[in-house]
Amino acid sequence: MGIAIISPGRDVSIWIDNITKLDNNIEVQVYPNIIDKEKIETVLLWQHPYGILESFPNLKLVCSMGAGVDNILKDDRIPTHLPITRIVDEKLTFSMTNYVIMGVLNFHRQILRYQKDQQRRVWDMSNPEIPVCVGIMGAGELGGDVIKKLNFMGIEVAGLGHSPKKGLDYPYYDKTQIDQFLKSINVLVCMLPLTQETEGILNIDLFRKCNKGTYLINVARGKHLLEDDLLMAIDEGYISGALLDVFQKEPLPEAHPFWTKQEIMITPHIASVTNPEAASPQIVENYHRMKNNLQLLNVIDRNKGY
Amino acid sequence: MGIAIISPGRDVSIWIDNITKLDNNIEVQVYPNIIDKEKIETVLLWQHPYGILESFPNLKLVCSMGAGVDNILKDDRIPTHLPITRIVDEKLTFSMTNYVIMGVLNFHRQILRYQKDQQRRVWDMSNPEIPVCVGIMGAGELGGDVIKKLNFMGIEVAGLGHSPKKGLDYPYYDKTQIDQFLKSINVLVCMLPLTQETEGILNIDLFRKCNKGTYLINVARGKHLLEDDLLMAIDEGYISGALLDVFQKEPLPEAHPFWTKQEIMITPHIASVTNPEAASPQIVENYHRMKNNLQLLNVIDRNKGY
Repeated sequence: MGIAIISPGRDVSIWIDNITKLDNNIEVQVYPNIIDKEKIETVLLWQHPYGILESFPNLKLVCSMGAGVDNILKDDRIPTHLPITRIVDEKLTFSMTNYVIMGVLNFHRQILRYQKDQQRRVWDMSNPEIPVCVGIMGAGELGGDVIKKLNFMGIEVAGLGHSPKKGLDYPYYDKTQIDQFLKSINVLVCMLPLTQETEGILNIDLFRKCNKGTYLINVARGKHLLEDDLLMAIDEGYISGALLDVFQKEPLPEAHPFWTKQEIMITPHIASVTNPEAASPQIVENYHRMKNNLQLLNVIDRNKGY
Repeated sequence: MGIAIISPGRDVSIWIDNITKLDNNIEVQVYPNIIDKEKIETVLLWQHPYGILESFPNLKLVCSMGAGVDNILKDDRIPTHLPITRIVDEKLTFSMTNYVIMGVLNFHRQILRYQKDQQRRVWDMSNPEIPVCVGIMGAGELGGDVIKKLNFMGIEVAGLGHSPKKGLDYPYYDKTQIDQFLKSINVLVCMLPLTQETEGILNIDLFRKCNKGTYLINVARGKHLLEDDLLMAIDEGYISGALLDVFQKEPLPEAHPFWTKQEIMITPHIASVTNPEAASPQIVENYHRMKNNLQLLNVIDRNKGY
C-alpha cells in the first residue's frame, strides 16, 4: 500500500526522497504515472485535477502539501468521509513572519523614499519614521507568530479573528468589530485562510474604512484581494502602498498593472515556501496513524475551511 | 544659573521648550547668543566649535545631545575635570534596532532582487531566501538590543565586543577573536563606538577575512569605514552589498561613488535620531544632580571613549 503524489507540473523528487528515507516500506507513486490505484490509501495534493480522487477506491487520507487547503476544498467531489490534513511547519512560520516584518519595517522606515532620494542624490533627514500600528487579519498559527514578534520588538499591533477571544496581551477584535479594528491601525496584513467568507474581503468598501495612507501587505491568497479595488484605493489615498506576494492569477500576467504601479511591491509567491524536509515527517506520521487507526495530526474542519 | 546649548546650525527650539517645560527656573541660552558666560554651569553639545568650552569659567557639566560622544572627545581642550554625559534613550534604541533588522531582512529576503525582477516583469520563485548569520560588532547597549530581538525572531546571531564575556545566550567573541567571528557570519553590522581603536576598522584587510558575499550594515559612524576599501571589497566579492547610514563626510558629497553603486543602499544618517522629548529629562535630571552634588547618570569614560 502507498502514497500517491498529485501535483501536476511540479518536480516532486525531493518529496519522494524524504518520504522513503523516513520509511522505505512506503511505496510512493506520482501522478499521472500511477499504476495501481487500488493500492493507494493516502494522497498528497497540490493543485490536483478536479474530481480525480473519485478514481481511488481505497482512499483513507488526503494530505495537503502546504499550510493552505483552499486548493483542495474547492473540489466538491472529494468524498466527505475522507479526513484532510495540512502542514504545520515552524520554518514556514519563520519565513512568513520575517517577510511580514520586512514589509512593516520597509514602510515604517520608508525604504522606497530613501531609494528615490539616492537616485536623485538628495540628502533629506526630515521625518525619518512613519509611526505604525500593525493590524493582523487572521490571528491564528501564522498571524499569532507575527503578533508575538512585533510585540517583542515594541511595535504596536492589533489582531482580527473570527470569534471573540479574551486574555490576550494585545488588542484583539472579532469579525463584528472590523470597522473599529481598521480605524486603530495603519498597516493592514492579510493572513486569513481563504474561505467563502474571506474571498474578496480586501475590497473597496473595506479600504474606504481604513485610515488614509494605510499600507497593505497580502501574504495569504490572491483571491482575498479585488485587484482593481486596490488600484482605486491607492488613487483615492486610503491605501498608500502595498507589498503583495499572492495574486488572483499566478504567475502574474505580463500585462497586469501591478508590475508597474509605483506604490506596489510584488514578490512571486515566495513569502513562505513549504519545506519538504519539514513537511515529510508529518505526512509519514499521519500515514502511520491512519494505518493504526490513531487520531490524525492537523486535520482541517471542512465547514470552517481551515 | 543655566544651560548653554552649543549646536551650530541646528534649530534647537524644541530642546529649549522641553527643558524649560520640565523646570522653568533653568535659563537656557543658545550659542552664539550667550550673554553671560559666567552664569553657565552646564553645556549641551553637538558639533561644538573646537576649544570653545575654555571660555566658560564656571562650567561643571558637559552633556552630549546624542548617544555618541566622539564629537565631544575629539576636542582635546575640554578641561579634564569636567564630567561628560551621553543620552540613553529607549526610542533611540528602538529606531536603531528596527533599522538594522530591516537591513538584515532585506538581505535575507533579497528585496533588491525582487525589485529588479518586478521592473523586468520576471516571475522567478527559485531560492527565495539567503540563509543568514548576523554578526554585531559592538555588543553594548544598542547592539545588545539588536541581538536580543534577532534571537527572539529565531535568526542566528553572534556578537563581538572589547573584552571576554561569559554566560551569554548567543555566541560571543572578544576583539582577539575577530577572525573567528568574521568566519562565522555573513551579515556584518557595525555598532561600535568611534574611538582611536575602532576608527577605520572596516577596511580591506578586515573585508578579506569575511566569508565571500558578506553583507555590511554600518549604523555607527562614517569614520569606522574606509569608503574606497568597501568599493574594492565589493568588486572582489567579499562584500555583496551594504546598507550605510553614516559617512566620512555628511551630507554625502554629490560626486561620491556611493550614490550610484548598485550594491549600496544609503540613508541620510536617520537610523536613529535623538528625540528631544526623551533626552531632555535626562539633561534636566543631571543638571539637578550636578547642583546637588549627586552622582551623575550616563557619564562616559574618557579613556575608553564611550
